[in-house]
Parts: sequence; structure tokens; C-alpha cells
Amino acid sequence: MTEDSRNPWQTLDSRVVYANSWMSVREDSVIRPDGRPGIYGVVLIRPSVGILAVDNSKRLALVSQWRYTLGKMSLEIPTGGSEEGESLLLAAQRELAEEAGLEAAHWTPLGSIDNSNGVTTDVSHIFLASGLVPLAGGQRHQGDEEIELVWMPFAEALERVLDGEITESVSVAGILKAALQVPELR
Amino acid sequence: MTEDSRNPWQTLDSRVVYANSWMSVREDSVIRPDGRPGIYGVVLIRPSVGILAVDNSKRLALVSQWRYTLGKMSLEIPTGGSEEGESLLLAAQRELAEEAGLEAAHWTPLGSIDNSNGVTTDVSHIFLASGLVPLAGGQRHQGDEEIELVWMPFAEALERVLDGEITESVSVAGILKAALQVPELR
Repeated sequence: MTEDSRNPWQTLDSRVVYANSWMSVREDSVIRPDGRPGIYGVVLIRPSVGILAVDNSKRLALVSQWRYTLGKMSLEIPTGGSEEGESLLLAAQRELAEEAGLEAAHWTPLGSIDNSNGVTTDVSHIFLASGLVPLAGGQRHQGDEEIELVWMPFAEALERVLDGEITESVSVAGILKAALQVPELR
Repeated sequence: MTEDSRNPWQTLDSRVVYANSWMSVREDSVIRPDGRPGIYGVVLIRPSVGILAVDNSKRLALVSQWRYTLGKMSLEIPTGGSEEGESLLLAAQRELAEEAGLEAAHWTPLGSIDNSNGVTTDVSHIFLASGLVPLAGGQRHQGDEEIELVWMPFAEALERVLDGEITESVSVAGILKAALQVPELR
């Protein structure tokens, strides 16, 4: 990272205090914007992707799964982390195949969102996918996933965001952006 | 947490592997949905709040600040974590005072979003605040914050979300929800 004159922080030292296969935690010794010493803990997460997969009848492919972190079921668009060295588009294509058992002919980026940006590096890139074709093998779950595919009219998914039933951040941002920016979904 | 029959995970053991004033990291030994042993790392973050503060001229109070995690400036609605035992509304009122130097007469909940829900417990609760009054002392920064207040017409803030210039997840969700749900902002 090049030096940016707008950065009011000074990093004195940096060490990894925890790591597993999905994230690591770095604790930096810093001089804060007010000139006093302190620490900053950063949760390092690789870029992630979220996919709005819409079929020719304007139905959205959602997945329902148990979220271990929050201890609840969550209805979401397919999402997931990219792998080391993997492009965002390839990550999105892989996640759509794994979680929904789908391939898509057309891919359009819908921008990205920064999640928990006071604590994590989790930037999630959203794609609109259309021209859907089911894969012969269906879903290809990872061992740590148990995912149910749910097809829902896009207009109903939008209602569920506005009602507060769909709350996962990438799903909320993606569905609301698509509602305002993708005329063919109206 | 009561037992939920939909939970396909089994937690065998749980230990805190890192903690600072803003978060802690727990590593659980688990039996995964496929029946195999594994671990799950959870970043524990207290509930957070985001405030859409809109004045009588439909201008939105935004804050511009350096995000240490991502190494970039970020234009956002005021956001922040709740303190131990603090209600969400009180947290929102405190953050609006600290970051924007404002009090608000009217508060309306706009739902919540789950950030990075594969890794963190960060649930952010969004409020619409109106009837704004500037506080005598102006902004009341924490030592780890250097924040510039920016007033922007709501319609322009919406454009910046759709353009991809505003990317912080709570701001994106809040501004898009308000655009679709709050008729007086149109």
C-alpha cells in the first residue's frame, strides 16, 4: 500500500494473533489520529462475492441455511469467499454452482459493499447472473454447508428485504440495488 | 440459546483466542453438518447502529473518515457499536451526537442487517432520524476518530450508492431502504 497523506493513523508494528482457514486476526500497534498510542485489531477476510441469479420468469435463486455465528436460519442470495488467486467472477461462478447448482450465461457486476469496515477487510462483490442452466449434478455442497435452494419471485424477495425478513447484508444491498437499477426486474 | 432442531451443527468446546476493547474471537470445536469434526471461528462484535439523519431540506448527514481496515477514505452515514448494556436507540443517539454533532426529535427504525455473517456477529440496526438540532459543542470525537461532516441532498447520496462511490454496507442498505420506503425523501 502506498502512503496516503489523508491517513491519520501511523502503524508502528503488526502481528498475527489468530488464524484459521477462513480468516486471520492482526493486531497493530498504532499512533491514533489524536496522537496517542493504541492498538487496532483487523480481521482479515479475502474478498467475497454474492450472486443475484434471476431466471426468465423473474424468479431469484435464494438459499436457506443455518448461520452458526448468529444461531439462526438465514434466507440469502448465494455468497461466499474467494479462494487464493481466484478472480471475483470465477469465485461467483463457483459459488453459484456449489450453492445453487446453477450455471449462468450472462454476468453483470452490481458493485461492492464493505462489511463491518471498522473491524474487517470483508469487501463483497455483487453480480447479477442470468441465462441460468441447472448443472447435471445439482448443488455441490462443502462439508460445512447444508443449504436449501428456494426460488422466489424477485418482487417477493424485495418485499422480504423491506419487511426485514431478509437481513444478510450482501442480499439486502444486491436486491435493493437491482430493484432500483435493473428495469427488467420490475 | 435454546436448542433449535434446525441447527445442523454441534458445538463440543469453545474458547476465546483473542480479545480487545472492540471485539473478541472465539474458536469452537464442532461437528459439522456432514458429521465430520472441525472448528468454527466467530468474531464477536456487539450490536451496532447506523443513522440516516435527514434535515428539513432533505439533506443527509454523512461523515467522511479514513477506514484503517481497508486503507481508504470512506463516505458513510454515522455508524458505531453499542456499549455494554446500552439500548440500540441510545447508542444511535450517542453516535449521532459524537459523529455529527446532532440531536434528533424523531426516530424511526428501518430494520437491521447482518454483516459478514459467515464470520462475525455484527448486526447493525438502522434508524431514520429527523427534526435535527445541532448540539452546542458540535461533534464529540473519540480519540480514534477523525471525522468530517458532509451534508448532501438525499437524492445525490442515493446516486452515489448506485454509482458505487458509497460502499459501506450499513450506508448502502439504509440509503436504498429509505429511497424505497420513505416517500417524503423522494
